[in-house]
Amino acid sequence: MKKLINDVDTVLTDALDGLAQAHADILTVAPAHRFVRRRTLTPGKVALISGGGSGHEPLHAGFVGHGMLDAACPGQVFTSPTPDQMLAAAESVDTGAGVLFLVKNYAGDTMNFQMAADLLDRPNDTVLINDDVAVENSTYTVGRRGVAGTVIVERMVGAAAERGLSLAALKTLGDAVTQRTASMGVALTSCTVPAAGSPTFTLADHEMEMGVGIHGEPGRRRVPLAAARDIAAELTGSVLSSLQLARGQEVILLVNGFGGTPLMELYVMVNEATTRLAGAGITVVRHLTGNYVTSLEMAGCSITVSAVDADAIALWDAPVHTAALRWGM
Amino acid sequence: MKKLINDVDTVLTDALDGLAQAHADILTVAPAHRFVRRRTLTPGKVALISGGGSGHEPLHAGFVGHGMLDAACPGQVFTSPTPDQMLAAAESVDTGAGVLFLVKNYAGDTMNFQMAADLLDRPNDTVLINDDVAVENSTYTVGRRGVAGTVIVERMVGAAAERGLSLAALKTLGDAVTQRTASMGVALTSCTVPAAGSPTFTLADHEMEMGVGIHGEPGRRRVPLAAARDIAAELTGSVLSSLQLARGQEVILLVNGFGGTPLMELYVMVNEATTRLAGAGITVVRHLTGNYVTSLEMAGCSITVSAVDADAIALWDAPVHTAALRWGM
Repeated sequence: MKKLINDVDTVLTDALDGLAQAHADILTVAPAHRFVRRRTLTPGKVALISGGGSGHEPLHAGFVGHGMLDAACPGQVFTSPTPDQMLAAAESVDTGAGVLFLVKNYAGDTMNFQMAADLLDRPNDTVLINDDVAVENSTYTVGRRGVAGTVIVERMVGAAAERGLSLAALKTLGDAVTQRTASMGVALTSCTVPAAGSPTFTLADHEMEMGVGIHGEPGRRRVPLAAARDIAAELTGSVLSSLQLARGQEVILLVNGFGGTPLMELYVMVNEATTRLAGAGITVVRHLTGNYVTSLEMAGCSITVSAVDADAIALWDAPVHTAALRWGM
Repeated sequence: MKKLINDVDTVLTDALDGLAQAHADILTVAPAHRFVRRRTLTPGKVALISGGGSGHEPLHAGFVGHGMLDAACPGQVFTSPTPDQMLAAAESVDTGAGVLFLVKNYAGDTMNFQMAADLLDRPNDTVLINDDVAVENSTYTVGRRGVAGTVIVERMVGAAAERGLSLAALKTLGDAVTQRTASMGVALTSCTVPAAGSPTFTLADHEMEMGVGIHGEPGRRRVPLAAARDIAAELTGSVLSSLQLARGQEVILLVNGFGGTPLMELYVMVNEATTRLAGAGITVVRHLTGNYVTSLEMAGCSITVSAVDADAIALWDAPVHTAALRWGM
């Protein structure tokens, strides 16, 4: 295992300390590294909290800031955070308008966020994100997994929260964005959890895992490595098959790297995906390309399509200032 | 070789087509993929042109846009662009105030940019970037190599050009920023040039290359993998030894990933580097953390320190809108 770390036991806390140094204008890290929160809160705004296992950086802490999250609770690598982290975060960032949890669909995350929501006596104030169309049930889930579409949900709900929408309206919006967002990924290599010290799974020299999860969970099938155009055709085809969009529909296209794939290759995938979407009569009106929901150093990528109307585009374009997404300010 | 590509012969053009799709609001790609330029030019502004081998994305095309470059000339992977690309770019973006070339110090790049400058009859309108303190001469250079500090030079000169500075003043500024900027990197793994099909060099399971170049060129020495704190100590120590800064000096710290290192590990390095700089009496006033000057999928990172005063901080903070760096707009 070759990693730029001091010790497998301190990688998370060392990284959070570095995040706090690098983005002191945006965020702070709570005592005992329990959560990351905005430096400055907006009184009366609904607080948005997400979280999950680490190793997917910049998700979620990299999306704390104006126009996205108020707090993020980091678990150990690929391990859910605990309810006490979520409760501490909620107590810290709730300025009176309530707290909405944005939760990726994994058994540990949903169980612990539900426990926190129950303890807050707000058991329904959660948006469940399940955009991965690769498999219906998986190693760590009942139902679809939550993957890179999380960025789009956090952005849309985050922008709407800045406008002062109510908690109920934000939950409705979050559910609606999730419904119209779909993703699927492919892995060319595995990744190594620091505490494990060896790769999570193995892929032969000429194999790829089609439909892989962001923890290296199995996808639909293991197949020989194919050309980018064929991979893009399957990923976009699966996503479009799930979304069932009308011709002429406008979308956001997110080509998301898993951490170990060069940006050059992601742009090759952008070109192929855009061509295939155009062929299906779908128009990409906004692009996001890069490493946003990663799996440590895994090579591969996912394609996310999110159907948008003028209101959604306005939310997407609204000012945002986080470690990983920034525009308009 | 496992890559998300169609063919080794089309990887560059496919990637440029994807870049053009993803960032159509900012840039266009010229016919025959000879250069990437801003969609909209500012009449009377000095035009800034950079370029070099591809495989370092987002450098340089990802820095085309308001507040940075006017055009970038991409060579094949790890191969210099040609003088005719530079001349075509200059003709396209010169709005009357002249063209300044920003060139990383590699033999092929300097020779070809010099030929273009001579043909334009402006042989001295070039800033030579040579921030890598690892080695004095190298595989492809006489003198120090140009590496991640290039981002800082392109940003500072780019911001100054928007203010309307003259070509002579911009060259003076670029030379000055280069002088006060130093970098050094480490590789944990090699990288594979698509057309070659096999790794550029080999590293044993427990080795790293200290002082590596961004094409995998040898650095100072090959040593056993060390803890992040020890790597950061050597990289920051070498950089500070070169810059000879006074205690109390303010700096920008760029922790740059080479493409295959998780963001989590880069933040571990930020934490260690910041601690070491503080120990030397140096204050980091701005951070940039991420994959900006990469070596395909190489694992590793570099540390860049650039000494700044209030004027330089104002240039850094000025609005920028490129594919890879964006704030204030």
